[in-house]
Amino acid sequence: MAAKPKLKDTRDARHRRLTMKDLRAAARRLKNWGRWGKDDEIGTLNYVTPGDIVAAAMLVRKGRVMSLALNFDQYGPQGGKSKYPSLGRFNPVHLMLRTGTDAWSGVLDHRKIRGTDDLIIMPLQCGTQWDGLGHIMYGDHMWNGYDCRTVTSAGAQKAGIEKTRERMVGRGVLLDVARAMGKKSLPDGFAITNEILDYTAEKQGVIVRRADYLLVRTGHVERCLAAKSWDGYSGGDAPGLAFETLDWLQEKQVAAIVTDTWGVEVRPNETDQATQPWHWIAIPIMGLTVGEIFFLGDLAADCARDGRYEFMFVAPALPITGAVGSPVNPLAIK
Amino acid sequence: MAAKPKLKDTRDARHRRLTMKDLRAAARRLKNWGRWGKDDEIGTLNYVTPGDIVAAAMLVRKGRVMSLALNFDQYGPQGGKSKYPSLGRFNPVHLMLRTGTDAWSGVLDHRKIRGTDDLIIMPLQCGTQWDGLGHIMYGDHMWNGYDCRTVTSAGAQKAGIEKTRERMVGRGVLLDVARAMGKKSLPDGFAITNEILDYTAEKQGVIVRRADYLLVRTGHVERCLAAKSWDGYSGGDAPGLAFETLDWLQEKQVAAIVTDTWGVEVRPNETDQATQPWHWIAIPIMGLTVGEIFFLGDLAADCARDGRYEFMFVAPALPITGAVGSPVNPLAIK
Amino acid sequence: MAAKPKLKDTRDARHRRLTMKDLRAAARRLKNWGRWGKDDEIGTLNYVTPGDIVAAAMLVRKGRVMSLALNFDQYGPQGGKSKYPSLGRFNPVHLMLRTGTDAWSGVLDHRKIRGTDDLIIMPLQCGTQWDGLGHIMYGDHMWNGYDCRTVTSAGAQKAGIEKTRERMVGRGVLLDVARAMGKKSLPDGFAITNEILDYTAEKQGVIVRRADYLLVRTGHVERCLAAKSWDGYSGGDAPGLAFETLDWLQEKQVAAIVTDTWGVEVRPNETDQATQPWHWIAIPIMGLTVGEIFFLGDLAADCARDGRYEFMFVAPALPITGAVGSPVNPLAIK
Amino acid sequence: MAAKPKLKDTRDARHRRLTMKDLRAAARRLKNWGRWGKDDEIGTLNYVTPGDIVAAAMLVRKGRVMSLALNFDQYGPQGGKSKYPSLGRFNPVHLMLRTGTDAWSGVLDHRKIRGTDDLIIMPLQCGTQWDGLGHIMYGDHMWNGYDCRTVTSAGAQKAGIEKTRERMVGRGVLLDVARAMGKKSLPDGFAITNEILDYTAEKQGVIVRRADYLLVRTGHVERCLAAKSWDGYSGGDAPGLAFETLDWLQEKQVAAIVTDTWGVEVRPNETDQATQPWHWIAIPIMGLTVGEIFFLGDLAADCARDGRYEFMFVAPALPITGAVGSPVNPLAIK
Repeated sequence: MAAKPKLKDTRDARHRRLTMKDLRAAARRLKNWGRWGKDDEIGTLNYVTPGDIVAAAMLVRKGRVMSLALNFDQYGPQGGKSKYPSLGRFNPVHLMLRTGTDAWSGVLDHRKIRGTDDLIIMPLQCGTQWDGLGHIMYGDHMWNGYDCRTVTSAGAQKAGIEKTRERMVGRGVLLDVARAMGKKSLPDGFAITNEILDYTAEKQGVIVRRADYLLVRTGHVERCLAAKSWDGYSGGDAPGLAFETLDWLQEKQVAAIVTDTWGVEVRPNETDQATQPWHWIAIPIMGLTVGEIFFLGDLAADCARDGRYEFMFVAPALPITGAVGSPVNPLAIK
Repeated sequence: MAAKPKLKDTRDARHRRLTMKDLRAAARRLKNWGRWGKDDEIGTLNYVTPGDIVAAAMLVRKGRVMSLALNFDQYGPQGGKSKYPSLGRFNPVHLMLRTGTDAWSGVLDHRKIRGTDDLIIMPLQCGTQWDGLGHIMYGDHMWNGYDCRTVTSAGAQKAGIEKTRERMVGRGVLLDVARAMGKKSLPDGFAITNEILDYTAEKQGVIVRRADYLLVRTGHVERCLAAKSWDGYSGGDAPGLAFETLDWLQEKQVAAIVTDTWGVEVRPNETDQATQPWHWIAIPIMGLTVGEIFFLGDLAADCARDGRYEFMFVAPALPITGAVGSPVNPLAIK
Repeated sequence: MAAKPKLKDTRDARHRRLTMKDLRAAARRLKNWGRWGKDDEIGTLNYVTPGDIVAAAMLVRKGRVMSLALNFDQYGPQGGKSKYPSLGRFNPVHLMLRTGTDAWSGVLDHRKIRGTDDLIIMPLQCGTQWDGLGHIMYGDHMWNGYDCRTVTSAGAQKAGIEKTRERMVGRGVLLDVARAMGKKSLPDGFAITNEILDYTAEKQGVIVRRADYLLVRTGHVERCLAAKSWDGYSGGDAPGLAFETLDWLQEKQVAAIVTDTWGVEVRPNETDQATQPWHWIAIPIMGLTVGEIFFLGDLAADCARDGRYEFMFVAPALPITGAVGSPVNPLAIK
Repeated sequence: MAAKPKLKDTRDARHRRLTMKDLRAAARRLKNWGRWGKDDEIGTLNYVTPGDIVAAAMLVRKGRVMSLALNFDQYGPQGGKSKYPSLGRFNPVHLMLRTGTDAWSGVLDHRKIRGTDDLIIMPLQCGTQWDGLGHIMYGDHMWNGYDCRTVTSAGAQKAGIEKTRERMVGRGVLLDVARAMGKKSLPDGFAITNEILDYTAEKQGVIVRRADYLLVRTGHVERCLAAKSWDGYSGGDAPGLAFETLDWLQEKQVAAIVTDTWGVEVRPNETDQATQPWHWIAIPIMGLTVGEIFFLGDLAADCARDGRYEFMFVAPALPITGAVGSPVNPLAIK
């Protein structure tokens, strides 16, 4: 086993030193536009082959299904206090069209059936979610070089989340960074570097490969659940991936990257010149599918127990036409 | 192979002869209350064991993923003309919180990121969907004998769809009744009987077993797609399961039953005394999970091609707390 | 002028001494069921005659229009911190269907018009609002003795707010209790008694009459605006009418009663046995139309300036069929 | 009295002869930018003075209040069949948060109050409505020359409907063109010219003046109500104002113009080069406030009866911050 890396306090050392020049260089270096054809709308999900899916299914050995979703309700992660400006997202509003109390009251009986019905109003990125490739622009362009005006008030004409309807199946790999670092949860501002990713993988005895759905656990969701408060979670400071992981992910050719944080990357961000600089590159430049606000606690406990950090991963987005995100109930099947 | 059944015109013969006495007898005969304990909230999903999940995963042989969802958008099945009273459902309303045109216009740049965001308003049963066990009441009770007042304006306090968050994985079996009958799509009013189900299974060379997610294809969705009109689909006349299939499904111990119609059972219904009499029994009495408005066309074509009508089925509901239904992107993986 | 009443600390003296017996007695004493016929759906709004409307219009002398609404937006009174359980209301969500940035981006030009459009999602009682007569039940009945099951998931079949569509016009009278008490705003828990109402009217030189729209100012909204925080406002402690004012209002025969608080009556309530006991009687028993969360600051300043506390009041509810409340932009015209 | 104009079939004679050159000339000729200062956000509503409001109130003589709104519900004008592309508007969706059936079922009693509550989802221009001045752009500009990017996904930063919160009060004048033409309702494609407006006013014995809220009746809404169908109403062919009326309205200096049609102007439009050419000029160039889908039937009958076509008009928009339209319950008070 490799020598343990020292856990540096990354807040002072790493933050706020990125410049726009670095972003532009990364954009040039990591640009996948055209890699899967000029009409591609799904980016790195293309890495997954039928063979990968067959292999992923073979990881199902004990028949255990674990959901990686938070329930969608008024107790979700939106609405906590924040020192940052709001994005206008809110927790799901679930409303009934017909109820059991209507039934009991007899007011439905003229229909000759006692049925209930319901409705939801929800920002598509208010909880456990996939970001679509239309979610972030780089300058005037989105993924694959499409004009950013492709995403209008009528939705994303290109790379809408519905294009992934038959994807999001493959080998899942968990990198439990919090556990590897000996922490219940990583502190806000903690930047997960390439070195730490490699260290975690090695410690777990797992190798990250092409076409993996890579899940990185910081423990942030569990920290909030334990505190019974989402204050500071949505849009606030958080542990997360360092900017340099973009190169690592590109090299590994992962299909998607997922975390248990609000926005994958470390916050405060590593620069004052851009907000969420990692996103500037990951989504529009690399075409990398990103999952956020996943609940990785149960899975992590299971992996720690049986020592297997790989599993079949099935997390189908709702095919909402033209959407730039989707709520999801991701399943890890072992 | 068994002798082919003659396709009877079932409309005259079978319809409108059920009485409330029949419903009450079925309720007595098929009641599963308490079968999985007095606190059970998921009914027939209990049939699925870890071993079934492992076995289901072994059906993944060619790495093909097929989505069984219709896209969720304004062109969905709601809003067509109907001679029946409306249930108040409508197609999803997808709205943007921030757009690429905002980005292009420069109005987002004060945020130092060009991001888009969106929101949906949708009845939970407006498209491809799971019915929750709180969706239908039998008298003053819902599944497992819970008081129907358990489903209030605040949602289902028992058997909410979120209780299925780690279910909906198993062996899927398609019974392509339309194809077995030599039809592109079965006509409205066509009642699928037990005999027809058996005949189809036998013709396909597949055996329906305990814990299966059973998908029955009538061709109804594809008929509407071909006609470019959903008129009459939602809540209208349709081919579908006969009331007698309740006994068949109980005997087979399926985990769930799915169709490509709006409401599983044949319409006009087999009685004038109850609306959707099959639902009266299936959901609250048997605890049977029901899927509707599935798109089975691609899957059916694939099964006809390779002769394999079984597959891994993964169709996780969104865990919306207290919901009596959920939109879903169901996947058949072969 | 009457001797000034001493401002008692009403919190200890008056609170929590009402019993269910008192509520029942009030219900018997104040019941207006049948007073305007067995089919009536608007209650005390019936007090207003055409002559009252003509007289109200004659109060318009300087041509000044004052809006008594808070703007409807995300900065509204919902969502503040509260020690009381939530009612599930939230601030309006305003969303665009087409934008000026779409226009600028050229993506609308295929329509040959550059138009914008928008949409709102809002609880009907999230801001400046009328309560409908279906908003509160007394036992199993609503206003005029209608069965409470009249208000189903499909809305109020009786006394929906749309029944007031040609009402809400008449003489408005402001009782600026805060000013009369020499306070910028009355403290939470301050109970406005009949004596205080009379005192305020007398001090202002105004007489409350049959058919008045009576506006009572506590200064609560302005206190929150000054504090730039709605914490504790919605559903929290507040100054407000004492239970005994029900008799006073009945005797005066006002058309409606309005305050600048969340819920008219003093909070903490005057009893632990009922929540909002004043509401139990005012709405279902008396048929009294109630307005809440009105902004009375500008009007109060104007009245103090010109010494005229009467005006033409026009505050049409949106005629939303079956609604139990309505947002409103109430106008005082002097 | 003037000689009666012959009712020409205007469809052939007038339609489709406008060119972009005509629009540009009208934009130059009618531009009111800067007329009320460079910071103005309410346009022609500025015409109304306090004296006008006092005078309007004096028109209240019999104390009759007439609502000019259609009720807001699922039976509204959206959703009818149309040969034109959809704008994505739909009828209001009214949902309950708590019901009387909940009350009857006892499930609310832990709150110690039996209260109901509700919520609405509605496009702001789905029914009886005011257009805001941010609703239409002319090229890259909106009213008063503001940049069209002023209306983003976050709403209208300038000239939002909330800026009119203390307006919409004044003298109303009805021009009942349908009645003047001897028709129950004008046919689709009928262009109301300046000559017809003058003729109608003269026939009615009313003079249109500065600061009037001018209501023009075609009978279109009543035609649909009688037919029990809104097919073709929203966005379809309709009678309406000719393009030339822009000059007439400018000269008269009306505060606002209102019709009982979906979109004020005649449809099919008078040109193929622009959609709703009258709107291109009226809203962004003239700053004219426009009301649509008003129900003028009761008012027209009353005016015909008493011969008085003027009244006090009070139609406050909901002050929704940043909105480009608002539902309204407009009142005519006589």
